[in-house]
Amino acid sequence: MTGRLIGVGVGPGDPELLTVKALKALQSADVVAYFARPAIRAMRGGSWKAINGAEELPLLYPVTTEIPKAHTAYRDAIADFYDVSAAAVSSYLDDGRDVAVLSEGDPLFYGSYMHIHVRLSQHYPTEVIPGVTGMSGCWSSAAAPITQGDDIFTVLPGTLPEVELERRLADSDAAVVMKIGRHLPKIRRACERAGCLDRAIYVERGTMTNSAVMKLTDKLDVTAPYFAIVLVPGWEERR
Amino acid sequence: MTGRLIGVGVGPGDPELLTVKALKALQSADVVAYFARPAIRAMRGGSWKAINGAEELPLLYPVTTEIPKAHTAYRDAIADFYDVSAAAVSSYLDDGRDVAVLSEGDPLFYGSYMHIHVRLSQHYPTEVIPGVTGMSGCWSSAAAPITQGDDIFTVLPGTLPEVELERRLADSDAAVVMKIGRHLPKIRRACERAGCLDRAIYVERGTMTNSAVMKLTDKLDVTAPYFAIVLVPGWEERR
Repeated sequence: MTGRLIGVGVGPGDPELLTVKALKALQSADVVAYFARPAIRAMRGGSWKAINGAEELPLLYPVTTEIPKAHTAYRDAIADFYDVSAAAVSSYLDDGRDVAVLSEGDPLFYGSYMHIHVRLSQHYPTEVIPGVTGMSGCWSSAAAPITQGDDIFTVLPGTLPEVELERRLADSDAAVVMKIGRHLPKIRRACERAGCLDRAIYVERGTMTNSAVMKLTDKLDVTAPYFAIVLVPGWEERR
Repeated sequence: MTGRLIGVGVGPGDPELLTVKALKALQSADVVAYFARPAIRAMRGGSWKAINGAEELPLLYPVTTEIPKAHTAYRDAIADFYDVSAAAVSSYLDDGRDVAVLSEGDPLFYGSYMHIHVRLSQHYPTEVIPGVTGMSGCWSSAAAPITQGDDIFTVLPGTLPEVELERRLADSDAAVVMKIGRHLPKIRRACERAGCLDRAIYVERGTMTNSAVMKLTDKLDVTAPYFAIVLVPGWEERR
């Protein structure tokens, strides 16, 4: 009997935004694996260690900077890292031990867990426990209604060319722009030209205690943290 | 001192997909208000009643069918209903009692709570507790990776005209089509013309015990439940 692979969504940062199901999975798993990224590491230092006597399996990224998609050799190295990580997880599964793999936000929505999932889910019994996404955490912090009724909603990476951002923002009722960083001035210009700058909201460190929420027009810097996001609320009628 | 308004996301259906924060809010609220829609009612019959001795405030929709956006008089009647519901909530808040308003999924993402929020959040201390969305519940049930990296992700109502659906599906890396119902054949044709039919997944009753997950090409009926959804996974490279 092999163990079970469990992708566990841990939500947007606040440990209380874990689901009951995720907590139970962490309590009963034999092994808790996690990619070593800052947010996960900070959270594990908090409440989780106390609730779980499981063995820890850190999966340490070989680099800490983001992956430039253009560089094939670099991306191959990352794929190799995921291969090695999946092999480490599978050795526990082969021993009949259940492995919970943590994922910030929701595991199957831009989550690192997916790299393990696509390598192992066809070979082992697998369960995915959804989580609260980072963007839900952000618009809840901002108390900003984002979509209602028949709104068309779009998630866009800030890395898109300016004209693409503008076109897609103008073509959506509501949107979230992720991966802000040095793209902030471009995103501001795209929002202005798309006619949504006035209602755009900038959110930094969404569900952390030191979060910052402001109108995008008030965020005048030329750069922002990579994990900041811009919200463009829909539901114009609001009644 | 007025009471606090708390929008509580209760997740996609499985009571274990409530967050710890949502559970605590339900346990400590003086009043638990909820719009009487089938899923909420079914859940409240389950585990929640037991954990919470709070007063219940059902907000009963005057009609049970969906709102046809075209009919102004009908929509006015619904807006009136939200006015009356907000007034009922505010009378408790004025008495200094904390009111938790339940919302399926995530409160600010197509959630009914927003109708209370826009009427009251400027007048009372307000907190919004995010929840796992219905769509996250669905793609987790399907164990289908939905977005990765720089994927552009779009949420579309199945009510859109066929050419609009086709255009937007072709223009997105990943998508979710909501509100299926009688629009199923049109959505299937739009997926085919947009080149994403082969990877489209049909999900019914996402996180219920009797959920159904199948390839959209295997779902040959002409209608589907209103709350069924179609997933179009992105992340083509999958490695």
